[in-house]
Order: sequence, then C-alpha cells, then structure tokens
Amino acid sequence: MTNFNIILFDDFETLDAFGPAEVIGRLQETYYLRCHSLNGGIIKSRQHIPVDTLPFAEIDSTGVLLIPGGIGTRTLANDENYIEQLRILSEKAPYVLTVCTGSALLAKTNLLNGMNATSNKRAFEWVCSTGAKVYWAKKARWVKDGKFYTSSGISAGIDMALGFVSDMHGVENAQNIANQMEYIWNPDMENDPFAIL
Amino acid sequence: MTNFNIILFDDFETLDAFGPAEVIGRLQETYYLRCHSLNGGIIKSRQHIPVDTLPFAEIDSTGVLLIPGGIGTRTLANDENYIEQLRILSEKAPYVLTVCTGSALLAKTNLLNGMNATSNKRAFEWVCSTGAKVYWAKKARWVKDGKFYTSSGISAGIDMALGFVSDMHGVENAQNIANQMEYIWNPDMENDPFAIL
Repeated sequence: MTNFNIILFDDFETLDAFGPAEVIGRLQETYYLRCHSLNGGIIKSRQHIPVDTLPFAEIDSTGVLLIPGGIGTRTLANDENYIEQLRILSEKAPYVLTVCTGSALLAKTNLLNGMNATSNKRAFEWVCSTGAKVYWAKKARWVKDGKFYTSSGISAGIDMALGFVSDMHGVENAQNIANQMEYIWNPDMENDPFAIL
Repeated sequence: MTNFNIILFDDFETLDAFGPAEVIGRLQETYYLRCHSLNGGIIKSRQHIPVDTLPFAEIDSTGVLLIPGGIGTRTLANDENYIEQLRILSEKAPYVLTVCTGSALLAKTNLLNGMNATSNKRAFEWVCSTGAKVYWAKKARWVKDGKFYTSSGISAGIDMALGFVSDMHGVENAQNIANQMEYIWNPDMENDPFAIL
C-alpha cells in the first residue's frame, strides 16, 4: 500500500485536490489517501470546504505527493520556509503531481529547473515568473517529465491523475476508473482545448 | 447570499460532493458552502478525505441542499431516523440536488413519489427499489422535476450543477464556470453516454 499525500493550504482550489483524490482513491488496494498541511488541523478551500489535515512532520516520505493550486498559492510562493519544506518533501517523493497553480509552488523549489512542465493558462504569466529555468508548455493538458506530473487548470488534474494511473497500472485501469466516474477522459496530454480561451 | 448545504455522511463519494461544490462555490457572491452531517464533526469520504461538518441542527433551512451518493447510502437508506431528518430538511429546502445514489436517500423520504428522477445506472436496480413510486429515467445525465435535481454517477453531478447554474443564473454563467474549471460541460440532460456501459 502506497500513501498518496495531498498537500492542502488555506484557499486551495477544491477540485484541484479532490478530482485526483477521487481517481486515485478508487485504487483502494494500492493507494491510501492522506491530507497534510504545514501545521495540521482544519484547512479551508477557496470554496469553504473544511478539511482535517495532518502536519507535514507526519508525512510518509515514500508516498506520492499531490500539490493542488488555488489563490492560496500566491502567498505561499513567497514564503521561503514553506517552499523549503515543500522542496524537502518533493525531493523525497517518488512522484509529485501538481494541478493548476500548484505547479508554481513546485517551480519555486527549483526542482523543475531544466524540466518540462505546465500549469493553468489563465495564470500562465505568473506561473512562468515562479520558475524562469522551467520549460513551460503553453499548450498541454498535462506534462510528465521524470517523476513530475504537472497539469493545466482544475479538471485537467482529473485527466492527469488518470494519465498517472495509466502509466503506473495500465490504460485499462485508467479507462475503467473514468467509466466508474462517468467521466469522459481526455487521454491526450497534448489536447488542451482551453489553451486558446 | 444563499447557503448551499452539502450533506455528508461516512463513506460518501468524494467527487459527488466536491464536483458540485467547485461549480457552486465559484459563485462566491451568491452562494456560501457549508458542510453538514447528522451530528456534526469529522466525516470521512469513501476515499478517506476527512471533512469537518456542522450538525443538521444548525442547517439554514432556506439554503439549497446537495446530497451526494456513495457506498455509505446503503446503510443510511434503511435508517428511519436519518431518512426522517433528511425528509424535514428536503421539504423545507428551496432546491434539492442529488448525485448518484444520493437519489436513493431522497427517494426514501417519499418526496420524489410521482416525480421524474435519475441516478447512477450501475446501482440502478437498488436505487429503483428505494422508490417504487418514482419515475426513474434509465437514460439521463440528470433530471429536473420541480425543485428536485437528480443526477447520474459522480461526474454527472458536475454537469447537473452547471445545469442548475444555467437555470438559475443563465447559460453564459454556467459556460464561464465550465471554462474556468477547464471542464468540457455536457449541457444536454438527455445525453447519458454511460447508460449503456
């Protein structure tokens, strides 16, 4: 059983975290979901969903990491201590998945330097400014480079999580989960219909 | 400001609740999201997401109600006290939205008797058994009848929530939210590609 650690912070975007949580959480025999925040306790999403979290200190560093986006990233991206904690966790994790502006937090750790990544196109200029040495893809639903999966906005996190399942456990498992979720999966990383909006 | 009350219970399906939460929560000037459970406190989804809830006793009865589905509905459907509490809340609410097997809980209150409704096609036989006097649509992404919106499985709740926004606040608002979410909205209630799976 692998822990799948969801990193939460005030004003995270609800679906950035819980879209992928639904996908990965359906692999009950393989992954166990845990919600973490810097100091633990109740964390509220931008949409006011209050989630009970464990502190970073209790993270299992062999687990996969999911970093959602949301307006809360704007402050955290400039919080040196937070970024350093996130760097330590991201360096240790076997895989790190980011959704939307969660990519900006990961970029700030410098671990994406020299790598391909993407993010929400609506916040693209700001995200690019958080990682000048990252090769940011202007048109991509999600990007995989090494152990890093980064995705475009909100629902793109669901497609990316299904892509992660496909890479790890086969495309049939991913398609089955999409069917159970009654979700029309966009399995093409490069098909980014919202890049032009 | 209208309260949008999300009803949670142990083993609710994560995305059933938080897909619609993302949609409705984006209308920040109009709706305020609150999570409630029978007795309040921490409630865990089927995928182990722990959410902090307020008790039913503190629900604002003028608010809209959202009832998600999930494996936890199987026990609750036979819990007479729970169903009676839910009946009182659903009777008072101006609108009641259900996702997936959340329809079964609403059906058990008898408020859907003589009305059109739908649910997850994978659990259809069981859901139909919870409301013999309901006109269950075998093929529908979601159904609106009076103040009741019922939807098919999991992701269908997102389409229904966008449909609710479209009905209440115009199709342009719904499409804008779908675009912000980078979600390809299925705006056709009758387009249910998963009915045949």
